[in-house]
Parts: sequence; structure tokens; C-alpha cells
Amino acid sequence: MSIHEIEGGITAVDGITASGITAGIKKNNRSDLALIVARHPCAAAGVFTKNRCPASSILFDKFLLRSRQGQAIIANSGNANAATGLQGMNNTKTMARATAESLGLPVSLVYVASTGVIGEFLPIKRIENAIPDLVNSLSKSNHRLAAEAIMTTDRFAKEIALSGPVGGSQVRVGGMAKGSGMIHPNMATMLSFLTTDVSIDPDLLQESLHEAVDRTFHCITVDGETSTNDMALLFATGQMKNPIRKKGKAYQQFVALLEAACKKLAQDIVKDGEGATKFIEIQVIGAFSDRAARQIAASIARSSLVKTAFFGEDANWGRIIAAIGNAGVKIKMEKLDLMFGKTPLLIGGVYQGKKAEASASKTLQKKEIALCIDLHQGVGSATVWTSDLTIDYIKINASYRS
Amino acid sequence: MSIHEIEGGITAVDGITASGITAGIKKNNRSDLALIVARHPCAAAGVFTKNRCPASSILFDKFLLRSRQGQAIIANSGNANAATGLQGMNNTKTMARATAESLGLPVSLVYVASTGVIGEFLPIKRIENAIPDLVNSLSKSNHRLAAEAIMTTDRFAKEIALSGPVGGSQVRVGGMAKGSGMIHPNMATMLSFLTTDVSIDPDLLQESLHEAVDRTFHCITVDGETSTNDMALLFATGQMKNPIRKKGKAYQQFVALLEAACKKLAQDIVKDGEGATKFIEIQVIGAFSDRAARQIAASIARSSLVKTAFFGEDANWGRIIAAIGNAGVKIKMEKLDLMFGKTPLLIGGVYQGKKAEASASKTLQKKEIALCIDLHQGVGSATVWTSDLTIDYIKINASYRS
Repeated sequence: MSIHEIEGGITAVDGITASGITAGIKKNNRSDLALIVARHPCAAAGVFTKNRCPASSILFDKFLLRSRQGQAIIANSGNANAATGLQGMNNTKTMARATAESLGLPVSLVYVASTGVIGEFLPIKRIENAIPDLVNSLSKSNHRLAAEAIMTTDRFAKEIALSGPVGGSQVRVGGMAKGSGMIHPNMATMLSFLTTDVSIDPDLLQESLHEAVDRTFHCITVDGETSTNDMALLFATGQMKNPIRKKGKAYQQFVALLEAACKKLAQDIVKDGEGATKFIEIQVIGAFSDRAARQIAASIARSSLVKTAFFGEDANWGRIIAAIGNAGVKIKMEKLDLMFGKTPLLIGGVYQGKKAEASASKTLQKKEIALCIDLHQGVGSATVWTSDLTIDYIKINASYRS
Repeated sequence: MSIHEIEGGITAVDGITASGITAGIKKNNRSDLALIVARHPCAAAGVFTKNRCPASSILFDKFLLRSRQGQAIIANSGNANAATGLQGMNNTKTMARATAESLGLPVSLVYVASTGVIGEFLPIKRIENAIPDLVNSLSKSNHRLAAEAIMTTDRFAKEIALSGPVGGSQVRVGGMAKGSGMIHPNMATMLSFLTTDVSIDPDLLQESLHEAVDRTFHCITVDGETSTNDMALLFATGQMKNPIRKKGKAYQQFVALLEAACKKLAQDIVKDGEGATKFIEIQVIGAFSDRAARQIAASIARSSLVKTAFFGEDANWGRIIAAIGNAGVKIKMEKLDLMFGKTPLLIGGVYQGKKAEASASKTLQKKEIALCIDLHQGVGSATVWTSDLTIDYIKINASYRS
């Protein structure tokens, strides 16, 4: 049986429970504190923001991850606890310690994540007071409450649960995520938490997460901003028989399963981008290398002019050419093919005329748009997902704090 | 006498004439063809776009510039002649040849510039037909007509004429420019043409232009797009006595004069950015190097979230911290000072509270905003200019071609 969706979210993996409650961090009484707990210590992997002003949760978790182990994740929304200095770090540690005490775990197994406004101190007393309730409401059925409690400007909760064959067994991956890039004023953060029952060497687990994230979360952009709080955490409970100890077929199968879960969450993040009205897939093929293809796809996906043209449903290919030229990769214009959906607009660098453009413009009226560029220079390829740049994006981001 | 403004634009330099007429390239009957001519061959310098899909005018001019000489510039607006392949290059050559014939000059002294829609062929017959009229209307007083004829979405013509001391003489610099980055759909291009009467070794002239452009045109961003057609061209008539042959005091004085002219034009371009309501100066000091300072300033200037916050007059410093962290430069948050105008909002990484923020917000109600970041890590510094990101930017760019 190939990879397929199953019931549930992050708790679809046996031994995982979750909860989400209102601790009073947000002003609007919406839920803002989530907990994910495994029955036993898990192999843990993580990927963190490259922002040079990281939140204290990032620094804390990176340090914990040296042990390659984890058993719980506590996450708050409404406050990023970033740019908060020593007091911020103390608050992160307090969150971890209070959670560990309430669960009866060593603090070294409790990861912390935060998302929300940058530069304000956490209401740490409220969080401490809420933790016993949070622990008491842990259950397999509360996965959605946890996914909701990490939302900031997200319009919908993002969850996934998949099952697929890995080394002769059926393996499960469950996950949840929130808001892409920096989609709100100083609402920071893409957060993603994942669980699996695979049994795997912890270093390979880390590598598999890097591979999956690189082809999914690292391939999306809403506004080109990398927040101070971005992270993806993965716990493997190790219940599956036949542990994965090398990069053979089972490892590849597991990466494919993990990638499928991450891809769904990543695409949901783009679809929920602030003010977004279009979901845009940009595929670049025939590049010298995968890296070159990625640079070109990302340059198009980051271009404000391209994204605004998509909002206007205008097949404005000149902007795409300019963005390709800005990627820092050598291009042979006379070889370049450009497809809007199934309409070739440029073939061998030659514009196919107003009729082709009219047909391309029709493609743009759909909610999901696919763009393909063939450079005919090699075999490198990449796919990137983005949203359009809209009047609502400006409205939301200009007026948020006023 | 120090550097001061004088009457006129690009023709303020003796021996330079200019003209601008309507050739019928634009659809709205506005002027679209400009000519700048020197009485004698000049030393020539140029800086060109780094876009890897350059327009044919860029390729043509780069080749000419190997001679370090020039006597005329013909420039059209309304059509970028970019992504037009072999036919595009033939049209550029035809423009140069027709101009050279009409002026009685060798073709190797005639530079070509184009700005406007990408991917359409020039109406070359109309241009050829218009060139005799263009040549006939050359005069010292027509500098403004020339500056207007290169406008695309610009709301005002951009001109400058300065005089300043260089090596004991008074030297003049005249100039004109148009639209920054890619400020319109596929309206490409920043163009800038400059003249001076300085007498200077052509290689030093090239170096002086690089220096001036690097601290002016390279320090502005409207939407982070580098067009296929960007260029700055500088002609030196060489009338000044005491030629500059080395990098002594006279050279430094000339660079300062040239930089002052470029700075005025560059700032005008930002003020005229599409939909812009604010002019924002971002100064970074105390960095490890000028390069690091530039990277940080540019990261802030490019951030859609920062620019949208300025539009909303929101002193949203969390976004600025996140943009600083994204510059790829090591930061010590605990040392960082951040000033909005004259209000310190962060000192040594510590937030100065709601009162300071309220005062910073007042600064944002002005049309011109200054931001200063001191990293306290070294002596590197940089200043970058940008505009805010507004609803009008989206409206203009979403609906342009429909």
C-alpha cells in the first residue's frame, strides 16, 4: 500500500497525546498554549531559523537537541519571546521546567516554541498557572486543539496524518504547522511539529528531516521574510520493528513519507498566506544544477512585481524574465521555454504572440497556477510554492498595531 | 566655493546640447525619444545592470565602452527592447546608425538606451523617421525636454546641475535620470545620463563613476527589482585645464562632485517610487565593515513588512530586528541601538518602552523618515534610501496591462 492519508493529526502516531488551551497570552481569549507529549523518550530532530537574531526558544531547543532526544513540546502563540534578552531566556527555561515538573520528566526532554509579537515579555505567571490544566487535558483526540493553539493570523489549522510503507512495515507520520515566514506585523514564525513511529538512528532522523524540509518548507515563500522563531521539530517513537541504521531503501521510503507530510503542511501555509488569493507553483527544469534551478525559482517567487501581476491576473512575462535574470545564474535566453499552465508563452526565447498570452491569462483566473521554465542547459530542477501579493496583504500589515 | 547647484540640467556643461520629441513609441502621444550630444568626442564611462537577461542596448553600449569614448546618447521610452533577441539587437544598431548618420558621427560614438515594456519589438521605422527632427531640435535649452522624453511612470522629470572645485578649477556636472528599479509592470529601468567638463584619464573617469554610483544609485531600492535595462552613462568633455591623471586630491574632489549629483538624482528616484508616500533613509553604523553595514541596511530596505509598517506609520521595530537578523551578518543583539529619527527605541538591545515608541511613531507621520542602527561592532557604515510599500503600488502594478 502506498502513502495515504489517515485519521488524526500529530497524535496519529501511537503513544502521542496533545492538548491546547487558553492561558491568556493573547488578548482575544483565543487558545494560545499547546502541548505535545510522547509516552516514552523519542529520537528527536530539528531544523531552525537562520535568522541571526533568533528567539530564545530557538537557542534553548538547539542546545537540547544535542542529545538527539525529546519527549514533550510546549508551544505558545501570541508572543514570540524574541528580542527579549536574558529575561526572555529565563522565561523559556521556566516554561520548560514547569512543564517538565508537571509531566514528571527531566527538563532536558522538553522543547519550547513561541510565536507572536516580537519584543514583548511573556506573561510567564499565566503560563505557569495554565500548565497543570494543559497537562490534565492531554489526549489522543485533542490534536486539533493543539494545532489551533499555535495559530496567530492563520485562517485555518494545519494538520496532517499519513501512513506509508517503510522497510516492510506501515509507518505513520503525524504533524501540525502554523503561519508561513513572517506573515503578520511582528507576528513571527513558521512552526511545524511532527511525530512518527519509525525506528531510526537519531543522526539519520536528523538527516531525513533536513532532506524533507529542504524540499518543502524551504521551498515556500509568502513575503520573503525569515522569522526569528521558525522551527520544525520531529519526534520518532521507535515502535516500528527493523530499525533504520543506514541510507538504504527503508530510509528513502521514510524520507518520501516525511516529505509528503511536510509538503502538505507547507502548501497549506502558502494557501493561508496573508491576503493571498492565488496558490502559485513555480517549477524550473533543465538548469545546470538543482541549486541553480532553486535560485531561479526563488527569485521569481520573491519578486513583488511578479506576485502583484498574478494578483492582477496579468500574464506579464516580462517581469518573469527580469526575475530570472536577477537570480545570479547564467541564462541562455535563446533556449528558454516558459509555460503558463499548459500554454507555452515563450519557446526558445521567442514570444508566442497575443493569442498565447490571452490563453495564459485565462490560466491566471484560476486559484491554483502552475508556471514552468525550461532552461535547456542541464538536468537540474526545483519547485517552489508562493502566493500572490495583494492589497489585503498591505492593509493587514500596515494597520495591524494601530 | 564649495559644491552648489547651478542653472540647467545635462546641458549645463559647455558643448552639450539635448532634445526630446514624440516619435510615436508610446501610445499616449507623450514624448518618448531623447538625444544628448557633445560638440567633440568625450571620455566616456558607464555602469550597467547585472541582470543576466540584459536588453540589447546594454550589450551594445558595453561593447562601445571598450573605446572609453562617446559623443551622443539616443534614448527611447515606452519600449525596453529587452527579451527581443536578434531582431532587438538589429533595432538597437539601426537606432545608433541612423543617429550617427544624421549627426555626421561615426556609429562607434553613439550610445543607445531603452526603457519601457519588455518583450515587444521597437517601432524602428517611426524612430528612424523621427531622428532628423530630434537632431534639428538639439539645443542647450532643451535639457528638460530630454529628461521628460525618458520618463515612463515617473511623475516628475529628474535633473541636476552642480558646480564645484576640482583641482583649483570650477568643474560642472549635469545630469538626468528616470524611474527606479523596475517600478512599473514590465516598465523596466533606471536610466541616468551625466556630463562633466572635467579633464580626466578615461580609466579614472570609469572608476569615479563606479565610486559615485556605488554610494548613490546602488543604495536605493523601491521594490528590490533590478531591471534588464539599468544603466548610468557619463561623458567628460575635457575642457577643464590640469587633467586628472592620478588619484590625488583633484580626483577626490571630482568624485565628491559626481557623487553629489548622483545622490540628488537617486533620491529623486526614490521619492518618485510607485505609490510611495514616504522617503526613508536607513543608516547603519558601527558594523564590522562597510559591506556588512550595507547588507544590513539593504535587508531592512528590501523588507516588505518593514516598508508596509512605514506606510502604516507604525514604529514596528520587531520587523526591523527580524530584517537585521536576515542580512546574513553576525549580530550582537545586546549591543544594538536603534533610533527612529531622534528617538532611541532600543539601547543596548533593550526596548525603551511605550513612551519611546509613541515618540517614534510621531516621527513616522513625516514624509521623510530617518532610521539609524548602531551595531557597536566596528567602524563600518552605510546609508540606503527606500520608499514605503503601499496599496497604490499594488494597484498600479496589478492593473497596468489590463
